[in-house]
Amino acid sequence: MIIFYDCTTAPSPRQVRMFIAEKGLTNSIKNIEVNLRDAEQLSPEFKNINPYCTVPVLETETGERFFSTAGCCRYLEDAYPNPPLMGVDKEEKAMVADMQWRMEIDGFLAVGESLRNSAPGLKNRALTGPDNYEQIPELADRGRERVKRFFTVVNKILDDRTYIAGKNFSIADITAFCTISFADRLKFEIPEEATNLRRWLENINSRPSTLV
Amino acid sequence: MIIFYDCTTAPSPRQVRMFIAEKGLTNSIKNIEVNLRDAEQLSPEFKNINPYCTVPVLETETGERFFSTAGCCRYLEDAYPNPPLMGVDKEEKAMVADMQWRMEIDGFLAVGESLRNSAPGLKNRALTGPDNYEQIPELADRGRERVKRFFTVVNKILDDRTYIAGKNFSIADITAFCTISFADRLKFEIPEEATNLRRWLENINSRPSTLV
Repeated sequence: MIIFYDCTTAPSPRQVRMFIAEKGLTNSIKNIEVNLRDAEQLSPEFKNINPYCTVPVLETETGERFFSTAGCCRYLEDAYPNPPLMGVDKEEKAMVADMQWRMEIDGFLAVGESLRNSAPGLKNRALTGPDNYEQIPELADRGRERVKRFFTVVNKILDDRTYIAGKNFSIADITAFCTISFADRLKFEIPEEATNLRRWLENINSRPSTLV
Repeated sequence: MIIFYDCTTAPSPRQVRMFIAEKGLTNSIKNIEVNLRDAEQLSPEFKNINPYCTVPVLETETGERFFSTAGCCRYLEDAYPNPPLMGVDKEEKAMVADMQWRMEIDGFLAVGESLRNSAPGLKNRALTGPDNYEQIPELADRGRERVKRFFTVVNKILDDRTYIAGKNFSIADITAFCTISFADRLKFEIPEEATNLRRWLENINSRPSTLV
């Protein structure tokens, strides 16, 4: 059985959890909760599983492990091709990869930057992983600025599209959705005038995979 | 003919240029140089090509454009499958995606962070793209620290592997190589004791694709 190391309160593994749900695999994969609040990811036991001290981790039936959303989802896409979540023809596959990258770099990382460089509970934990890094308050400010611009960018992308990468739901929507839900939890406000983004968000919110 | 918007002095498009060379496509794709030194990427003409004001850009024969290394390379991999640079079976594909992500996030972004937040010529250009962001000196320091740790991480990954993702050369080696070459240009020193990394670097340096 495939094993998925998860944490229900964290936005990175949520992407993989939602991906698994969209593939209809929720009950076929063993889920192990890692308690990030108690820093279980930094324990020697978990370090043996993942030296990078992060979730998600996906462990295949033959014991191979992947330590990033990118690696976990790539494996699941090829092992369980239906429904496709990374595009079908070469143009769509490339557009999904392109948008997935943008959602992560311009969105997900920016939200993380704003939180991790300001939350009192994350002092010295400005980056995930085994090493401690001091918070940089200016980076929290810059992260907040970037998140605002990200909302505008996503709204623009959705001008002539139902989904982030075109006419089909994909991993790019999952990353964008997990990013924006997380930003919402952190009290970022989606601008009133971002009507495409609001319409898209309502659409994605109606998917059962957002509830897992 | 496919068009590739490039800049010979920049490390991001170098990854795509090297990918194109490894596919044997250097002479089959039209190369257009964008002069980043003169801020050509911020001109209205280039903004019409890429609203995100960055290179690389790949334009397909039907006029579709991809604006990230991830998108450009994904398209080329599917359009020209041989030699494969993103893995062959599902395990290898996932390992390549996993490592490609790590090389980019822990390596490439860290080197960029250290340069863009300190170079006098990049004042207000701490991030690529259309928007200006002030430099954050503490972020340059943190970037330098991260690059040092990245060398150690890559050295460790190469403990039992010829290439970053396993036994075959892949896009993960291209990203790692472009990152480390760029770090070298910025006078980062690869530690003497990183013998796996030095052996790998010598091996990659012997490939003709590093010269394009």
